[in-house]
Amino acid sequence: MSEADFIIRLRGIATDPAARGLADDVAEWEGLVLTHDMIVEGIHFLPDDTPQDVAWKLVAVNLSDLAAKGAAPVGVLVGYSLGDDEWDAAFVEGLDLAMRRFGVILLGGDTVRVPAGAPRSFGLTAIGRAPPGGAPSRSGVRPGDQLWVTGSIGNAGLGLAMRLGQEEANETCLAAYRRPQPQLTFGQAVVPHVHAMMDVSDGLLIDAQRMADASGCEFVLMLEAVPLSAALLAVRPDVVDTRLAAATAGDDYQLLFAADPGAAGAIRDIAAGLNVLATPIGHAGVGAGIVLTHRAQRIVLPERLGFTH
Amino acid sequence: MSEADFIIRLRGIATDPAARGLADDVAEWEGLVLTHDMIVEGIHFLPDDTPQDVAWKLVAVNLSDLAAKGAAPVGVLVGYSLGDDEWDAAFVEGLDLAMRRFGVILLGGDTVRVPAGAPRSFGLTAIGRAPPGGAPSRSGVRPGDQLWVTGSIGNAGLGLAMRLGQEEANETCLAAYRRPQPQLTFGQAVVPHVHAMMDVSDGLLIDAQRMADASGCEFVLMLEAVPLSAALLAVRPDVVDTRLAAATAGDDYQLLFAADPGAAGAIRDIAAGLNVLATPIGHAGVGAGIVLTHRAQRIVLPERLGFTH
Repeated sequence: MSEADFIIRLRGIATDPAARGLADDVAEWEGLVLTHDMIVEGIHFLPDDTPQDVAWKLVAVNLSDLAAKGAAPVGVLVGYSLGDDEWDAAFVEGLDLAMRRFGVILLGGDTVRVPAGAPRSFGLTAIGRAPPGGAPSRSGVRPGDQLWVTGSIGNAGLGLAMRLGQEEANETCLAAYRRPQPQLTFGQAVVPHVHAMMDVSDGLLIDAQRMADASGCEFVLMLEAVPLSAALLAVRPDVVDTRLAAATAGDDYQLLFAADPGAAGAIRDIAAGLNVLATPIGHAGVGAGIVLTHRAQRIVLPERLGFTH
Repeated sequence: MSEADFIIRLRGIATDPAARGLADDVAEWEGLVLTHDMIVEGIHFLPDDTPQDVAWKLVAVNLSDLAAKGAAPVGVLVGYSLGDDEWDAAFVEGLDLAMRRFGVILLGGDTVRVPAGAPRSFGLTAIGRAPPGGAPSRSGVRPGDQLWVTGSIGNAGLGLAMRLGQEEANETCLAAYRRPQPQLTFGQAVVPHVHAMMDVSDGLLIDAQRMADASGCEFVLMLEAVPLSAALLAVRPDVVDTRLAAATAGDDYQLLFAADPGAAGAIRDIAAGLNVLATPIGHAGVGAGIVLTHRAQRIVLPERLGFTH
C-alpha cells in the first residue's frame, strides 16, 4: 500500500475536525498545533550521517510543519531506537542543540532497542501554540492569490548529491541538507497575511501541486522566479534543467504560501525585517493543476514532481 | 547503551518541570498529560500477532500511561511503518476499534516505508486532560501508605506463553496479552485519593521497585495478596513460584497506587461501583527497596524483577 492509499484509509477513521482530514501535516486542537513525523535510516537519512545531524533533522522537519501553520513551538516528545553508545550520546547532544536553537523543551518520549542490523527509525511529536487567527490550511488558496516561497530552493537536494560524492561539496548546500532551518519566525510573522501555507519538504512542484489540488485552484508557476542560491548557481548553469531539478528536489523545508496581491508590501516588509528571502513565484487561477512557465514559455511538467513515499 | 543509561543522558536536557525529569512515563503541561510509547516487532509484539491486536496494543499501552495519571484521554498521533496492503488495512481496522473503545480521536501522524525485511516499529503519542488536582507522580508515596493494584496480575505473561505454544491456551489469558485494557475509568475515579500511581507494564515487582525508589520508601509486598485470576490458577498451582512468575511477568497494564489507609473505604467503593478489582498488596515504610513476604515469611527477591529494556 502506498503512503497515499494508507492515508486515505486512515482518513476514514480521522473524522474529528481537529485532524483536518489528515490533509494538512498537522492537527489543530484547542489552540494547539500538533504534528508527528518519522525519519528512517536509509530513507530519510544516510547511515553515515552524523548523529548530531540526524537529531537536528528530526527536530527541524517537525518544527517546519509548525512553522507552516504560523505556530509558536513549545515542546517535543521523541521516539528513539537505541544504537551504540557513542552514537546515542552524540544524538542527545544534537537533540539538545536543536532544541535550544528553536526554543523547545523535551517533554518526554520512549526508547526501544531494535533487533541488530535493523535500520533505525525515530519519531518526534511537536507541539506548538496556534496563531491567534488559527492555523492556515493548505486548502485556502483563492484564484488571484500571489504564490510565494521563502529562502532558496534546491540547496538541500544538491547537498545530498554532495554528501553522496556525486558533486564537489560546498558548505551552503551541505548545510542545507545537514541542518535544515525551519522558518519559524517568518511563519509566525506572515501568518495573518496568508490564505494558505505549507512547508516544502518533498519538492516545490509536488508540494505546490498538493496545495493547488487541496484548494481547487490552478497554480501558474514561473520557473525563472524560483529562488536559487548563489551556491547552487556556482556549480550549475542557470538553465531550465537546473531549475527543474531544484524545484523537484526535496528537503528544502521552506514555506510555500498564498496571499492576496495587496498583501505583497506587508510581506516584503516582514521578510526584510527578519532578513528572510521571500519571493513571489506565480499566482493561483481558476482551474486545476500546475502550469509551469519559463520566461513566458510554457514548460512541460517533468514526470516526477518530487518525492512520493 | 541501555535504555536506563540513555534516559539519564536525556534527563540532562529535559530540564523543564513539565517533563518531570522523564521519571514518570508522561509529561504534564498546561493541564494536559502527554505520553509517547513505541512498539517494535519481535520485541513488543510477535511477527504473527494480528495487525488488529498490534494496533490495539499500541493504543492501549499509551492510554495505560494516561490512566495511571488519572487523565481523560483525548487524542492520538500515530507513527506507522507501512507493510503489505492486507496488514495495513487490518491495522487501520484495529486502530479504529481501539480508538472507539477508549473514546479518543486520531489527530494525525506519519507513515514511512521501512526497507524490506526490517522489523516494523510503531509509535504513538497520546494526549489527555490532567485531573483537576494534577497528575500524580510515581514519587509521592508516604511511609504508612497502603499499596494497591487493580485487576489480576500475570494473565498477559501467561497469555504470551500460550501464544508461543508453551501452554495450553485459555481465552482470559490470551485476551490479556492480545487486548490489554487500560484502567482509564478507574484511574480517573481514584486519582483524588492516591499519593502516587503508575501502570504495571514491565512486571509488578520491577514497577513497584521503581515507585519505591522514586518515593524514597521501602515497599513491603505480600505475595499471597497479589491477585491472580481463576484462569491463571486453572493452569498453575497456587505456590510461591507461580506467584513470583506472575509478579515478574510484563504487559499487565494494571494500576499500582499508594494511598492513605484511611482512603481504603472510598477506594473499595469506587472499585465496586466500576466493577474493577482493586486489591491491597502491601504497604510503604521508611527505608528503601522491596521486601517480599508470603504468608508472613520473608521471600528472597528473584534476580529478575521484570522486563528491563
